[in-house]
Amino acid sequence: MQKMVLSILIDNTPGALSRVVGLFSRRGYNIDSLTVGETEKAEVSRMTVAVTGDGIVLDQIEKQIHKLENVIDVEKLSGEASVCRELILVKVAASREERPSINAIVEIFRAKIVDVAADSMMIELTGNQAKLNAFTKLLDGYEIKELVRTGITGLTRGFLTEQA
Amino acid sequence: MQKMVLSILIDNTPGALSRVVGLFSRRGYNIDSLTVGETEKAEVSRMTVAVTGDGIVLDQIEKQIHKLENVIDVEKLSGEASVCRELILVKVAASREERPSINAIVEIFRAKIVDVAADSMMIELTGNQAKLNAFTKLLDGYEIKELVRTGITGLTRGFLTEQA
Repeated sequence: MQKMVLSILIDNTPGALSRVVGLFSRRGYNIDSLTVGETEKAEVSRMTVAVTGDGIVLDQIEKQIHKLENVIDVEKLSGEASVCRELILVKVAASREERPSINAIVEIFRAKIVDVAADSMMIELTGNQAKLNAFTKLLDGYEIKELVRTGITGLTRGFLTEQA
Repeated sequence: MQKMVLSILIDNTPGALSRVVGLFSRRGYNIDSLTVGETEKAEVSRMTVAVTGDGIVLDQIEKQIHKLENVIDVEKLSGEASVCRELILVKVAASREERPSINAIVEIFRAKIVDVAADSMMIELTGNQAKLNAFTKLLDGYEIKELVRTGITGLTRGFLTEQA
């Protein structure tokens, strides 16, 4: 089993996202995470898809995405040659007694407290997957009320795309 | 025209994401942004979908999503009652002469420089949509080589979900 992160430029039209997502689900491939948002051009969106599976099948899927209507470009984001980031928001139960120890975790990770209620706190953290996983592991001892992750997004590093 | 942000809990299965995305595209509704990632439970994913359209149709779509197979819960994230965040990575052309002024923008927004190449820099910023839009506007005078946004993600604030 292999992990693959694909960065896909698509036309900003109703069908484009649906076609790419449908290709994975028709092959029974679960998407680990997906982000799609605006780019510097209004008519183009950039998707980032993280998927785990058999290497040969993943390569086939990559080629099939290339051929889909409204797909402009596809590239693999590999570890060293790209910068990958993810954002997490966690709402954690926090009694008066628990707050100091939660604050300590927030400081270690240079995370941000973005909301405080009577018995909970919401924390925001950005980083690579390893950092986010270490963070959620440290929070294991607390009651997680809600948690959301954007999924991985990324760009290739400068030295690869330019002739400097 | 109205903007709506939906937070949708789905089973972590190949078809679930595809069904939700397909519902929007069949109605010809373009998704402004979408994120889907892990939650605190391995078998559940959380999607956040931002969409613009006619208010009545958007309400219909919300109800239809509720009825889809593998959809566990749907809630609207409204401005004041929720914390919404987005992450952006921008690769901007940066000659030696341009770097100081780009660094100044990075400092104003408390953004992070995550990669530097001979003639470009990559910047990471997290915030609400207004902040990210202000940031990209300030970068308008520079050559944007690549840009990726995760799309909006968010959670409801503590006071709404708890009886404090």
